[in-house]
Amino acid sequence: MTSLRVGIGPSSFAQEDSQPLEILKQAGVTVVPNPTGKRLTEPEITAFLARERLDGLLAGLEPLNRRVLEAGRPQLRALARVGIGITNVDVAACKDLGIRFSYTPDGPTEAVAEMTLAALLHLVRELGPQDRALHEGRWTKVIGRSLRELTVLIVGYGRIGRTVAGQLRGLGCELLVCDPFLPPEAPCEFRRVSLPEGLSQSDVVSLHAAGDRAVLGDAEFAAARRGLIVLNSARGELVDEGALVRALESGAVGKAWFDAFWQEPYSGPLLKFPQVLLTPHTGTYTRRCRREMESEAARNLLRDLGVAAA
Amino acid sequence: MTSLRVGIGPSSFAQEDSQPLEILKQAGVTVVPNPTGKRLTEPEITAFLARERLDGLLAGLEPLNRRVLEAGRPQLRALARVGIGITNVDVAACKDLGIRFSYTPDGPTEAVAEMTLAALLHLVRELGPQDRALHEGRWTKVIGRSLRELTVLIVGYGRIGRTVAGQLRGLGCELLVCDPFLPPEAPCEFRRVSLPEGLSQSDVVSLHAAGDRAVLGDAEFAAARRGLIVLNSARGELVDEGALVRALESGAVGKAWFDAFWQEPYSGPLLKFPQVLLTPHTGTYTRRCRREMESEAARNLLRDLGVAAA
Repeated sequence: MTSLRVGIGPSSFAQEDSQPLEILKQAGVTVVPNPTGKRLTEPEITAFLARERLDGLLAGLEPLNRRVLEAGRPQLRALARVGIGITNVDVAACKDLGIRFSYTPDGPTEAVAEMTLAALLHLVRELGPQDRALHEGRWTKVIGRSLRELTVLIVGYGRIGRTVAGQLRGLGCELLVCDPFLPPEAPCEFRRVSLPEGLSQSDVVSLHAAGDRAVLGDAEFAAARRGLIVLNSARGELVDEGALVRALESGAVGKAWFDAFWQEPYSGPLLKFPQVLLTPHTGTYTRRCRREMESEAARNLLRDLGVAAA
Repeated sequence: MTSLRVGIGPSSFAQEDSQPLEILKQAGVTVVPNPTGKRLTEPEITAFLARERLDGLLAGLEPLNRRVLEAGRPQLRALARVGIGITNVDVAACKDLGIRFSYTPDGPTEAVAEMTLAALLHLVRELGPQDRALHEGRWTKVIGRSLRELTVLIVGYGRIGRTVAGQLRGLGCELLVCDPFLPPEAPCEFRRVSLPEGLSQSDVVSLHAAGDRAVLGDAEFAAARRGLIVLNSARGELVDEGALVRALESGAVGKAWFDAFWQEPYSGPLLKFPQVLLTPHTGTYTRRCRREMESEAARNLLRDLGVAAA
């Protein structure tokens, strides 16, 4: 038994599966849940850390800047982010303050890659228009395309990009890869191309890049094969929203799937395009993925607090 | 050059890709298109065959019973069905009348298997509800399930059933197979089960059986794991429609995809269930599948007429 106290940031923690919570309880730490049941604001997380005298925090997307982290000291010694994005955490401040930081970079890979496949199949097999028509009593057959007819350009060949590429190749797609940060000698089973070259030869572009710089804008849509399908499970900022709207209106972009947006919750101009499949940033929302990411984060936190996981 | 005359039954023939028509033209036969642009009725196909003095017919779903076939004789010598279903053709009458008959049993396999995967992913990743909500401005995250969490029961282990099973295993599903017509010694990589046993252990049942007998009715839904997902790309008759409606209302069946119905065009009670994905019998509707099936049928017809394909 230990007297360590661990706070839980994400309101959805262990909601679908109790395993992550069991890992903490069996290690004997005291678990202090999020007191609001919603994402904590800066004043709320500051007060939570100061009041509860937490040794460790399982972090979601609440703001964890230097001021907040200082409020948790000297007690707070470890921070484990449940997930891959770390833009809400001041990692340098963690280091300065002696707070160990971890995240779960592998957690989302499988779920996001699967959701990308789901979205691509949904779009090319015309499930949306056919389902909507038939539910309204209209029997309207639409010819789709098979994965075997498609060339897919992967932009960003990291964990998720590689997994998507491998999965789609197994199902018959042609693959091209564009990643300026990948060293020329790095292993890559697919033909590497520049962005303009890739766009001119592909039916689909799937974004898996890091960073906040727009990769697709007016010039890129103009250079792309007409009717391009755009898949974005990564970040809204990778696409120029105004250029995308123009490309959808002109037909330069034929269809799209967006799971990541410029602001979230999103209520912008993409809502009016039925040919755009929209999901509310749920690429990682499977029971399995939540359980695995939460369990990994729990084990990371216990390790950084010097406690053995059961 | 030959003076042979070949009629085209399906109004959609070569609409998406000219390759199948080129095969006929390059062999030098005269091609006589469907005169109505719609599926030919019995009087229409009878008149078409008699009037045009056709040597061969590329057949769709028009009724080709004994009376119709007799009207085509003595000229008519070969019939090539574009597709797999042959319930509209009196094959015994073909034999009696000396008309060679062929069809394209392999044509639909890949496209139907892919559509089954598309539908399953659409359902388990909650694409429909999330897309509808977000298009209406509601940011509603729904936790889905990964393929890796699912046990899938394949009913009917023929061409399509095998292909679906292989694809789903590659993506992480557990597979069970039920096929009473498969000899016990036949090769099967998966655990074989009885229907009640399989239903009690599966999250998903995918129907790929032949025949018109109902496989799923009240008793089967009662024996199944609660929230069962039913996939039917094969035949409406494999499921008792009334029992399915009751199971959807009670939650015994959680979700379903139907691409084949009891009457087509379909406008029955499934229309009112948003958790049922509906497509208008378009499992084979990809550009690639249409082109390959039509080309195969064209080559079959030329072979049966004794003409070499180019």
